[in-house]
Amino acid sequence: MEKYMMLSKDELRELESSLTEEYAKAQQMGLKLDMSRGKPSPAQLDIAMGILDAVNSSSDIKSEDGVDCRNYGGLDGIPEARHLMADVMDVSYENVIVYGNSSLNIMYDTISRLMLEGTGGNTPWCKLDKVKFLCPVPGYDRHFAITQHFGIDMITVPMNEDGPDMDTVERLVSSDDSIKGIWCVPKFSNPGGCVYSDEVVRRMAALRPAAKDFRIMWDNAYALHYLYEDNQPQILDIISECEKAGNPDMVYEFASTSKISFAGAGIAALAASKANIAEVKKALTIQTIGYDKLNQLRHVRYYKNKDGIMKHMMKQAEVLRPKFEAVEEVLDRELSGLGIGTWTKPLGGYFISFNAMPGCAKAIVAKCKEAGMVLTGAGATYPYGQDPSDSNIRIAPSFPTVSDMRKAAELFALCVKLVSVEKLLSE
Amino acid sequence: MEKYMMLSKDELRELESSLTEEYAKAQQMGLKLDMSRGKPSPAQLDIAMGILDAVNSSSDIKSEDGVDCRNYGGLDGIPEARHLMADVMDVSYENVIVYGNSSLNIMYDTISRLMLEGTGGNTPWCKLDKVKFLCPVPGYDRHFAITQHFGIDMITVPMNEDGPDMDTVERLVSSDDSIKGIWCVPKFSNPGGCVYSDEVVRRMAALRPAAKDFRIMWDNAYALHYLYEDNQPQILDIISECEKAGNPDMVYEFASTSKISFAGAGIAALAASKANIAEVKKALTIQTIGYDKLNQLRHVRYYKNKDGIMKHMMKQAEVLRPKFEAVEEVLDRELSGLGIGTWTKPLGGYFISFNAMPGCAKAIVAKCKEAGMVLTGAGATYPYGQDPSDSNIRIAPSFPTVSDMRKAAELFALCVKLVSVEKLLSE
Repeated sequence: MEKYMMLSKDELRELESSLTEEYAKAQQMGLKLDMSRGKPSPAQLDIAMGILDAVNSSSDIKSEDGVDCRNYGGLDGIPEARHLMADVMDVSYENVIVYGNSSLNIMYDTISRLMLEGTGGNTPWCKLDKVKFLCPVPGYDRHFAITQHFGIDMITVPMNEDGPDMDTVERLVSSDDSIKGIWCVPKFSNPGGCVYSDEVVRRMAALRPAAKDFRIMWDNAYALHYLYEDNQPQILDIISECEKAGNPDMVYEFASTSKISFAGAGIAALAASKANIAEVKKALTIQTIGYDKLNQLRHVRYYKNKDGIMKHMMKQAEVLRPKFEAVEEVLDRELSGLGIGTWTKPLGGYFISFNAMPGCAKAIVAKCKEAGMVLTGAGATYPYGQDPSDSNIRIAPSFPTVSDMRKAAELFALCVKLVSVEKLLSE
Repeated sequence: MEKYMMLSKDELRELESSLTEEYAKAQQMGLKLDMSRGKPSPAQLDIAMGILDAVNSSSDIKSEDGVDCRNYGGLDGIPEARHLMADVMDVSYENVIVYGNSSLNIMYDTISRLMLEGTGGNTPWCKLDKVKFLCPVPGYDRHFAITQHFGIDMITVPMNEDGPDMDTVERLVSSDDSIKGIWCVPKFSNPGGCVYSDEVVRRMAALRPAAKDFRIMWDNAYALHYLYEDNQPQILDIISECEKAGNPDMVYEFASTSKISFAGAGIAALAASKANIAEVKKALTIQTIGYDKLNQLRHVRYYKNKDGIMKHMMKQAEVLRPKFEAVEEVLDRELSGLGIGTWTKPLGGYFISFNAMPGCAKAIVAKCKEAGMVLTGAGATYPYGQDPSDSNIRIAPSFPTVSDMRKAAELFALCVKLVSVEKLLSE
């Protein structure tokens, strides 16, 4: 098949009629598919069931420093959990605090604290007329939801293949002291799957922001979430890069085992400079008496160390990989060479990012929905839910089964074709 | 022995010398006792060990509404956990959200949200010149720490035997619209052990505050924490009392299983009006994808229902009661009739509240410390750590063993006597 845009109106009309027929059949299949969220499948969660036995009624419930994990206390997390999460993030032990079950919650609390109390003696953000954040796009809707919730203006920055466009980032942060931060998913970015190059990480760490309290929100959510055993890209440790660049306090790094053990019952961690950790702990001492140390213990007893987690992640990859490959295979077969879409082939993470012809994303998502398939809302990967070219669609292959995923990808490709033809006919 | 204040200077001097000798001996014993925090003892925690087997690798991990507790989602908590916590608080199911492991964290988040976002369309508190809170005293130091942390002025209100002095509370809240809230521990108050009478609860619910966004922080931390099987005082349900009084949104109620199951790994809950719950959930949706549902499931599977918790609490009472009784027995024996102190004999909760002669509390705590016994800092039960009459001392009998508790009480009584004599001699 040649590129759609090379087709005559007559050819397009003919194509539209056969695609419409095909779509009507698909609608009659009564599909019920959900590719909307980056949610582990039951099969992935099953792999971690042993964790539920790792601490039981006959277990020694003391941490390695002798603390009774059942009782109050231990604001930093138990030492062995701090070591484990430090290894997951590839940072030093003393830079890490282990929290409860949600790194999103740590991010929210971080922004909330910066709003109310500020950092490093600077004015709390809620006292300023204007606070802005840079948002590389496409990006993670829940990040954008946090900044929007706190009334922080969002400025989009384009993503390149190796991370955010650093020329743009440097220009913006150095010239505007109301720009207070940037959201980053440095490894297997959500949704693009891109991995920040060493150059991008170094330039990020070496930023010279006009705002003294500029902060990088480094969401290392997919640190060990590889799809392939033999192709595992690495990123530089932002904490030590910031330190080397003379910006030790400029970054907060977040990670969790939500997509390692259990999405709802994992452990989450923050990594930051000693000064930042000290500042965080001043508030944390007021906020709680300590997070769930038994769940931290459960994780350490079960995984032992980073190697244990890596082995676990390779089992997960075996579950996830066929789903990604099913989507890629269908899209390659159905859409290659048509000039109506491009898509990513990530080496890890939870998403495939699809770019339709401008002005088609919303219509594609709506068409899919009418045939029984829920996708993440078009625009969700942009601040305020507004994709200016109405082009990006996030595909989350993790939750459905492989066979559902194949059906879903086929329906998706059909909807892309149909909407693209309609678009071309309307021009 | 007659009242110390009836003794002549000579008699006091003689007494001082014998007490000093006794204290020197106590110092030589090299005691190491900690009565500083309301922390469960290992023996109490042991009672709950079965909870660690309640969900294991062969368990059905679905909640009663079919949700996979391992996965994301379920912002309200699983239905069966909401029912359980509703029964613990004696409120309706639909008024309850179940969170993670810390009710203190919910309180902190609540104040933080009111600061940044306000409630019911009123101005966020951080935008106001002045925000004040009423603090019944003596009270809980961690409550005061939260209000102080957010720069909220604290106004003390005296506690009567049946709760805060409501004449004072009514007068203050009706006349000053910068007074935005009050901290309450309505049952077995910390540290006084008092139980709010029905009249106090009804007057609290019927307040007509000048501030439309006045909020009662109802920390029902000791809802089922009785020391005796046959004397279990009850309090009215503040949620429905506020509703009846036309103030449905005026209260947030907090509870947890921290002192039921595990202090560090329990489940916590918020109860509030439907409008409040809706408002809370608007922020919660941004803050997290959901709390640890597996730990909620663990609690429900283990306790089954409120009856199950009550049976458990009676086992805990058997561990706790002898410690309280040891303190009471020693204080009765050593201090009765001397006119140098009064103390509470609570029916539940975690504390005994001791009132020394004015100006003696700090000196007593210091004397105890020099002989190897850590008490909660004198003044801790007052905002800013300042007890204007330097009189109140909080005794936390839960953590030490009964025999340590007896030794501790004896040392404490000795220090009270010695400091009181020194005080009387200095006057």
